[in-house]
Amino acid sequence: MVKTSFKFNSKYGVCLVSSVILNLFFVLNTYVGGNWNLNLSWTSRAAAEAEAVAALFCSGHGRAYLDGLVDDGNGEPVCECNSCYSGSDCSHFTPDCIANANDGDPLFLEPFWSQHAANSAVVAAGWHRLSYSYPDDTNISKELERLIRKLHAVVGNAVTENRYIIFGAGSSQVLTAAVYALSPENSSLPAGVVASVPYYALYRKQVEHFNSQKFKFEGDAHQWMNKSDSSKYMIEYVTTPNNPDGRLNKPLLQGPNVNTIYDRAYYWPHFTPIPAPADEDLMVFTLSKLTGHAGSRFGWAVVKDETVFNRMTDHMGLNSMGVSRDTQLRAFKLLTTALKGDGRGLFHFGYHTMKTRWERLSSIISLSKRFSLQKINPQYCTFYNKVREFSPAYAWVKCEREEDTDCYKVLQEAKITGRAGNAFSAEDRYVRLSLIRSQDDFDLLIEHLNKLVSDEDGVKIM
Amino acid sequence: MVKTSFKFNSKYGVCLVSSVILNLFFVLNTYVGGNWNLNLSWTSRAAAEAEAVAALFCSGHGRAYLDGLVDDGNGEPVCECNSCYSGSDCSHFTPDCIANANDGDPLFLEPFWSQHAANSAVVAAGWHRLSYSYPDDTNISKELERLIRKLHAVVGNAVTENRYIIFGAGSSQVLTAAVYALSPENSSLPAGVVASVPYYALYRKQVEHFNSQKFKFEGDAHQWMNKSDSSKYMIEYVTTPNNPDGRLNKPLLQGPNVNTIYDRAYYWPHFTPIPAPADEDLMVFTLSKLTGHAGSRFGWAVVKDETVFNRMTDHMGLNSMGVSRDTQLRAFKLLTTALKGDGRGLFHFGYHTMKTRWERLSSIISLSKRFSLQKINPQYCTFYNKVREFSPAYAWVKCEREEDTDCYKVLQEAKITGRAGNAFSAEDRYVRLSLIRSQDDFDLLIEHLNKLVSDEDGVKIM
Repeated sequence: MVKTSFKFNSKYGVCLVSSVILNLFFVLNTYVGGNWNLNLSWTSRAAAEAEAVAALFCSGHGRAYLDGLVDDGNGEPVCECNSCYSGSDCSHFTPDCIANANDGDPLFLEPFWSQHAANSAVVAAGWHRLSYSYPDDTNISKELERLIRKLHAVVGNAVTENRYIIFGAGSSQVLTAAVYALSPENSSLPAGVVASVPYYALYRKQVEHFNSQKFKFEGDAHQWMNKSDSSKYMIEYVTTPNNPDGRLNKPLLQGPNVNTIYDRAYYWPHFTPIPAPADEDLMVFTLSKLTGHAGSRFGWAVVKDETVFNRMTDHMGLNSMGVSRDTQLRAFKLLTTALKGDGRGLFHFGYHTMKTRWERLSSIISLSKRFSLQKINPQYCTFYNKVREFSPAYAWVKCEREEDTDCYKVLQEAKITGRAGNAFSAEDRYVRLSLIRSQDDFDLLIEHLNKLVSDEDGVKIM
Repeated sequence: MVKTSFKFNSKYGVCLVSSVILNLFFVLNTYVGGNWNLNLSWTSRAAAEAEAVAALFCSGHGRAYLDGLVDDGNGEPVCECNSCYSGSDCSHFTPDCIANANDGDPLFLEPFWSQHAANSAVVAAGWHRLSYSYPDDTNISKELERLIRKLHAVVGNAVTENRYIIFGAGSSQVLTAAVYALSPENSSLPAGVVASVPYYALYRKQVEHFNSQKFKFEGDAHQWMNKSDSSKYMIEYVTTPNNPDGRLNKPLLQGPNVNTIYDRAYYWPHFTPIPAPADEDLMVFTLSKLTGHAGSRFGWAVVKDETVFNRMTDHMGLNSMGVSRDTQLRAFKLLTTALKGDGRGLFHFGYHTMKTRWERLSSIISLSKRFSLQKINPQYCTFYNKVREFSPAYAWVKCEREEDTDCYKVLQEAKITGRAGNAFSAEDRYVRLSLIRSQDDFDLLIEHLNKLVSDEDGVKIM
């Protein structure tokens, strides 16, 4: 055996050290977030595109999207700015901008998804689910249905055992399907559809638009409470928590010819205590107010009666052949993320955000004699195992001064756009202010409200 | 300066060579398909998940999906098998299986997307488009609308200049929106809705289900051709190419009180010559029959009249608040891929597949005296700049023998499931056979047809 002695040569030593450092660099880059990138092939391009668009700097006041508006020059996505912001990086704030507190766009949840970027992204392959049907010949993803049942069990906000679950393109579509399904099959008279004031205008608008021979909107449920004609078929919408005032409403009508649609869109810890799991014959939920993905158009109903379920299924089939498989894939990924770990992270985020917002708003309005807010007593919550305050999605503001009959106008003059009471078939002394939009929107609302209230005689905002 | 001499030591030499080889490996792995993986971070997990599921071996007779059925033991996705195949890897063919030629599931296009995997994948971030609206406060992606206009220009199959474009959850939803929009606003009598036999059953089923006071299904348009009451509002569906028989139908009714909905779902080079760009007041298209993504539920209409467009927009808003943003993102990516290069690749694929299938089918049926196919004369095609044969999506088979009044049953006994003529309000001497399902389905259909025809006296199948 020949022994060779080593004398270190700087040139080859440098090569070796450089090579090892390069390898360390690749190893660190390749092992990212618990995953090895080593084997990525056909997804790389899509992944790189998504990351490039996400990396566009929009000052925290906007976003760029893969399918978003593009620069006419280079065809590259540009920032889409939040209300009151503009400029190529959304850094320019419009002075004297009006606070948008009109619609229920649930943007308050977006930061949760930014924080859970790696877990909540999903890749849709070009060949993902071309077919009209899932393997069981339905339009309903069994795995997504399973997740929804688990979700309700984790939150404890609805009974799903021995119930059917049907999907719709938003609770909007589910609500119409429910009305069709609950209408009498063999009656010459249309069912009367009612809701108790104040109620969400969509109910009336949908029923009037579809203009069916089988149902007719008959207005305020209060007016039908003591009617003696119990042979008339009635369908009552009960929104609980209510939109606009956040109350845990109960049905006003009962009887053998009364069917009730429970709109449970807001029945999540973000907005309300959960005294008990909802246990009604037809309960409607939406992804919009749970995860914030209003744009996805995904809702569902938990249905007790098989005939009602089948009739709703027929409606979804004829209306749109069910819900998009792309939407169902997305909902599957979002709910999987939400239910990771103890499954409570999304609810903690939602509740703490809404609680803080409600407290900020309440503390200002409490100083005012001109405006008042809805008051709802705290209740025991089985999700948090304690008595807790409500943290509603909307402030149902009342203008208390006699001359302030048009409360929308009063607020508009103070640079706040709310939604007038008449939109809920209520008096115009009321205005609904949305508390669930982005932080930018909420901060501007608070700023204008502060000024408005501080301008009242005798009010001192600390 | 100290000169050092080098004597190569095998141990360190091996280290250097190994390290350099590892460097080369990382470099090759990192530069994939024209993209550098170096900077992938939050998308890596989703990308790896998607690739893992896609890599599941299903023998070419099935697929696994991210949101697909899972193994109850380990919770991992399993293969979902094509008709007539089963087993954990879909390799087991069911002997004597019945060929599925019933529905119009456009699976024939799936291989195109497998071939374009890298271009057609899209990553939906957790924060992708939570909002109810696009920046212009509509439910319609302007960039997707732009792509659709470009698509029609490339194919030359529809005029879109000075027209509005509206989206729906499948052409199913667009068709209903059209009927609502074309119904008379101020008339005590409902509009009569008709279609010419044979026609697609959905038209009648939708109108009957919605049961509106504004429109009523009145059956076969042929019956209304010479009616003298021209004051009655009529809405005619004209499907062109027609479902089930592939003909380029023309409207039967005309007059000041007649409105026409042109269902142009099949007006693509896959199925028909394109003699000229369609130029009607209301033309309906669907992604299902263009790219094959029936499960995505995406359709659109090209609309001339602003009032009609606005009424359709109202319908979409009240029905489902527009089409899912997830679906619009997906459609955006798929159409971007389809229009890459000269934008003709998808159509070549579709046309050549359907041409081959139609020729195989025709060559068998041409030997038969028992069965006949629809005959449509070739026409000049502006897309291919030549006279070409039709390559319809469906065979409209007629049972010619006097005793074969139930053609569905004749074929069912030969292990072929078609769709009976009565489903199209036609005689049961006719059966529609779907030619657009997967290659597995089509091959089995051909096999059974071969046998059926070869069993006829005097027939010899080469």
